[in-house]
Amino acid sequence: MAIRPLLTSQPHVVVGLGDDCAVLKAGPDFDLLLKTDAVVEGIHFLPETDPERVGHKALARPLSDIAAMGGTPTSAVVTLGLPPGFDPERVLALYRGMNRLAVQHQVAVVGGETTTNPGQWLVSVTVVGSIPRGQALLRSGAQVGDAIFVSGELGGSLAGHHLDFEPRLAEGRWLRSCGWAHSLMDISDGLAGDLPHLLAASGGLGAELLGSAIPVSRVARVRALEPKAKPALLAALTDGEDFELLWTCAPKDAVRLLDGWKSAFPTVPIHCIGRVTEQPGVRIRDSRGIQQLPARGYEHFSAHV
Amino acid sequence: MAIRPLLTSQPHVVVGLGDDCAVLKAGPDFDLLLKTDAVVEGIHFLPETDPERVGHKALARPLSDIAAMGGTPTSAVVTLGLPPGFDPERVLALYRGMNRLAVQHQVAVVGGETTTNPGQWLVSVTVVGSIPRGQALLRSGAQVGDAIFVSGELGGSLAGHHLDFEPRLAEGRWLRSCGWAHSLMDISDGLAGDLPHLLAASGGLGAELLGSAIPVSRVARVRALEPKAKPALLAALTDGEDFELLWTCAPKDAVRLLDGWKSAFPTVPIHCIGRVTEQPGVRIRDSRGIQQLPARGYEHFSAHV
Repeated sequence: MAIRPLLTSQPHVVVGLGDDCAVLKAGPDFDLLLKTDAVVEGIHFLPETDPERVGHKALARPLSDIAAMGGTPTSAVVTLGLPPGFDPERVLALYRGMNRLAVQHQVAVVGGETTTNPGQWLVSVTVVGSIPRGQALLRSGAQVGDAIFVSGELGGSLAGHHLDFEPRLAEGRWLRSCGWAHSLMDISDGLAGDLPHLLAASGGLGAELLGSAIPVSRVARVRALEPKAKPALLAALTDGEDFELLWTCAPKDAVRLLDGWKSAFPTVPIHCIGRVTEQPGVRIRDSRGIQQLPARGYEHFSAHV
Repeated sequence: MAIRPLLTSQPHVVVGLGDDCAVLKAGPDFDLLLKTDAVVEGIHFLPETDPERVGHKALARPLSDIAAMGGTPTSAVVTLGLPPGFDPERVLALYRGMNRLAVQHQVAVVGGETTTNPGQWLVSVTVVGSIPRGQALLRSGAQVGDAIFVSGELGGSLAGHHLDFEPRLAEGRWLRSCGWAHSLMDISDGLAGDLPHLLAASGGLGAELLGSAIPVSRVARVRALEPKAKPALLAALTDGEDFELLWTCAPKDAVRLLDGWKSAFPTVPIHCIGRVTEQPGVRIRDSRGIQQLPARGYEHFSAHV
């Protein structure tokens, strides 16, 4: 649905809809970042999911969006939609999980509204962050020839990562301050779903990925051994909820970025997975040749990988 | 439920939970205001309610909270929870209603997330505002002897006012800048429900109201004529969703505040309805004497008025 044409801007809006966060002019030295997100029982978590993990996830998701601008989160407000007869102990546990993460990143949770939502729990979290003025790392900065990087490993998130992931806040800030990254976003809908957003925002560019360079998580590899399972590479491309960072930089800066990262975050792997092309669309190269990544529908592609 | 003890603060939090908005230190000249609120189908509006009015209400509610600090709203983000098979035309209509109000108050709606919420629509809106540093008008500033004022008329909101009300933003800013108001909040849960919050925040004070001074809306008076209807004064005290302003000022400033208001807002009535007392509790004086307003449960009180 095209909501964007309906929305109205104002002079203080640097970036509205369409990036990981909105960017708003605030003081002379910094811009505000603003992001809202919701998790819903039965969709983003199950009735039997540990509520502490639900609270963690509900806050970690918008924090990942702040990370994807290179920013620092400062405050959050929460609205809980609760069915009649909810268990108050579960609400307390949800807040414990959320607050543990909030404390870790010095985020103040300054509002806790509740409302009735028959049928299922819904947790809506809005996060405010700040960033030095004009320095937000946008999706729209990728250039032809850029090296494409991802943090961590992709695929199989539903096995547990989606509830426990750590938003890459320090890493996002490092990417912003190193000065080499041209564009940045987080991967929430799978690499195959999100990379096209970055390329479209950068003026309709394309990408060529190297299949063997895409970091496939161990759990996705193990799951791929099950009967009728998704192939591991397809899982890494399409599973979603990875909440890793995806960025580009000039090829001349790729090696020092890699070295700098290793020194700053020795336990977080990163991989250069391909390059930005002038030709639109995303292609994957492997030992059997080059294959177009479909914009949607992976049945045929699944047979190929 | 006591959420507050679970939440964690940070040095930049001036006011956390417990006032109409959170107040956060931001730049050298101004503080940020932050408020989230949600409306749910079947509770805050009906399936057949015009979606433009739902959009208006969903944004107007948190704007009323910004008004209740004396602030200026700048930006909003929205999460729509939609049941499967929702009508996209209704989503567009909801945004039309919201954006009309946003444009009127120069608020940028910078994010429009959607998620599935089986069973009913849910509209969560977070508003960011700004206010000159240290000047937010809090609930906690009331003093013994203060005159108590309300804007507009109270009661009967469900007949339509709750969908169409105009947040009192200009009025809230005027109250802040006039310098006479000691405390301010908006009335969302009825005067009888909200005044005790202001008095509690101000150190456990009380109030004596003059029954005949409480402005009862025309619709509440008309409804009171129906069989078994709530008496009009009780409706004005307890109906909720008035979204009018409630404030206190020193008695010596009450007349010039009244004169200044009349000149600034000639079409918006205000009434001095009583005074703040050292004795806790809220009492109402009428021709038959003085009556304690119960903290909850209005059955007996209903028989009296």
